Amino acid sequence: MKTRIGIMGYGNLGRGIEAAVRQSGDMELAAVFTRRDPEKLTIATAGVPVVSADELEAWTDRIDVLMLCGGSATDLPVQTPKYAKMFNVVDSFDTHAHIPEHFAAVNAAAKVGGKVALISCGWDPGLFSLARIYGASVLPDGKSYTFWGKGVSQGHSDAIRRIPGVKDARQYTVPVPEALEKVRGGENPELTTRQMHTRECFVVLEEGADAAAVEQAIVTMPNYFADYDTTVTFISEEEMKRDHASLPHGGFVIRSGVTGLEKEQTQIVEFSLKLDSNPGFTSSVLVAFARAVARMSAEGMCGCKTVFDVAPAYLCPLSPEEQRAHLL
Amino acid sequence: MKTRIGIMGYGNLGRGIEAAVRQSGDMELAAVFTRRDPEKLTIATAGVPVVSADELEAWTDRIDVLMLCGGSATDLPVQTPKYAKMFNVVDSFDTHAHIPEHFAAVNAAAKVGGKVALISCGWDPGLFSLARIYGASVLPDGKSYTFWGKGVSQGHSDAIRRIPGVKDARQYTVPVPEALEKVRGGENPELTTRQMHTRECFVVLEEGADAAAVEQAIVTMPNYFADYDTTVTFISEEEMKRDHASLPHGGFVIRSGVTGLEKEQTQIVEFSLKLDSNPGFTSSVLVAFARAVARMSAEGMCGCKTVFDVAPAYLCPLSPEEQRAHLL
Repeated sequence: MKTRIGIMGYGNLGRGIEAAVRQSGDMELAAVFTRRDPEKLTIATAGVPVVSADELEAWTDRIDVLMLCGGSATDLPVQTPKYAKMFNVVDSFDTHAHIPEHFAAVNAAAKVGGKVALISCGWDPGLFSLARIYGASVLPDGKSYTFWGKGVSQGHSDAIRRIPGVKDARQYTVPVPEALEKVRGGENPELTTRQMHTRECFVVLEEGADAAAVEQAIVTMPNYFADYDTTVTFISEEEMKRDHASLPHGGFVIRSGVTGLEKEQTQIVEFSLKLDSNPGFTSSVLVAFARAVARMSAEGMCGCKTVFDVAPAYLCPLSPEEQRAHLL
Repeated sequence: MKTRIGIMGYGNLGRGIEAAVRQSGDMELAAVFTRRDPEKLTIATAGVPVVSADELEAWTDRIDVLMLCGGSATDLPVQTPKYAKMFNVVDSFDTHAHIPEHFAAVNAAAKVGGKVALISCGWDPGLFSLARIYGASVLPDGKSYTFWGKGVSQGHSDAIRRIPGVKDARQYTVPVPEALEKVRGGENPELTTRQMHTRECFVVLEEGADAAAVEQAIVTMPNYFADYDTTVTFISEEEMKRDHASLPHGGFVIRSGVTGLEKEQTQIVEFSLKLDSNPGFTSSVLVAFARAVARMSAEGMCGCKTVFDVAPAYLCPLSPEEQRAHLL
């Protein structure tokens, strides 16, 4: 029997999950839930019901894993504990500082319901977290580095769009090549924020806006840009559509450590991603972990989990025998 | 209380484990077991007993995890099932074709003893297997590639040493840069054995040996060299000692796949290692998994496991709360 997936929220991530479920022979899309008017939402898959979020509770027998595709700021802190009482759930909560309290709330709810709730899944947090824990565990005497990009940061793009005179904006986070090379070379450098990443901004101005003032507002913006070397390029609306429509991303997690009685051996572990589409890949990761959640629930587990708690065997559709024969 | 580690076999791997245990604050070396005369074996750590392998059974209460450091050809097929009845064990069995039968024998033994036995640990099989299962799981519509090197293949070096007229030899496996670039570029090429790796051999001849005959014997050797572009360089004994004393290795596991409703998004996941010392790194991985074995045993699990069955949280000395706060 196929694992029945429900999608709560049909934005970039929800659509990505719909596509990823189609690529998984052992899964099927059971329903898409929305807070909008379901009559007005058309999804890509014919024959799959679009249902009001208000009716979700009636679906507990028809959904094996509910994918929560809301935002980390306001949606998931409410939705994940709420639905973890009724469903196995997966979310991509990514506000690092608030993970401990989110975990606690979701864990309590999932235990009440006897459900498995996997939080903070995707690639960072997610696969990059896995690279960090494997790296730190196998090379305890070492240093970890995470570089992001080159890729579009949606939070930074939004911050630029809020500046008066800005019509549209796209911000790319770019690792500094020299820093990356030093880390790969095993030098274990101490790197400041400015030394690790640069920020490239592409901005479409409103008619009559003051370009110099906008540029100044961007490069001096605290938290977002002030600590970085930031470049601002003004482009036309046509150029924005033509050259900056996609959401590529990626990055590198590098663990550089030493082994040997005299710590004489430098050992470098690197994990990297090069992604055409950030939401497309994130969704694909979430669906693999949904498979794990369904299996762990079937084994009687419950409570809140993170990617650290999932044995890799649960992710893979192959049987344990096939995994050992073909992947080990 | 620290996890008490026993080492069975004190070669490159056993010495590496001794060093890695020193780097792990939550572990201690309890004893080294040897099939040689214990009186004649001096280990690096003062105060740790060196014991005859014949006395191992008397140590069941004093060892939490026994590290089996023998070879895959003849030692481990006997030792791992034998000792898994009495101890939690970790081995690095790496004969891929025989993993299913090794798993079955070890699983039966470990279940009799109520112990956890982790087999085929290290970096390949081991961390590279993990890269393969994560990659295949998150990008089901894709292709995986494993490149090894640049690094010393001990099996291939040994094969050259068996040729008459050869005094010493070192063989490096080298990934073909053009193949690596094609894979990284998302082209998903079909690659033959010859297109993926080249083999570089450094050979010291016996006095009076026929260089041309030795070279011919190497490049035409079935299984080992005939399917590769192989170069043979004759060097002096001094050059061998000076330039080829260490055992570097490494490699790349790349998963290249597509996502999106139209499969329009190319996504690339890459895991790579750059190792000064193959045995030094392998040992360090084995010790991290020994921590996991001790914890899984303490939770009441038993039977044969592979790296696929180990949730990453078990590998890391940090508490689950610390892991979520600092690594997620």
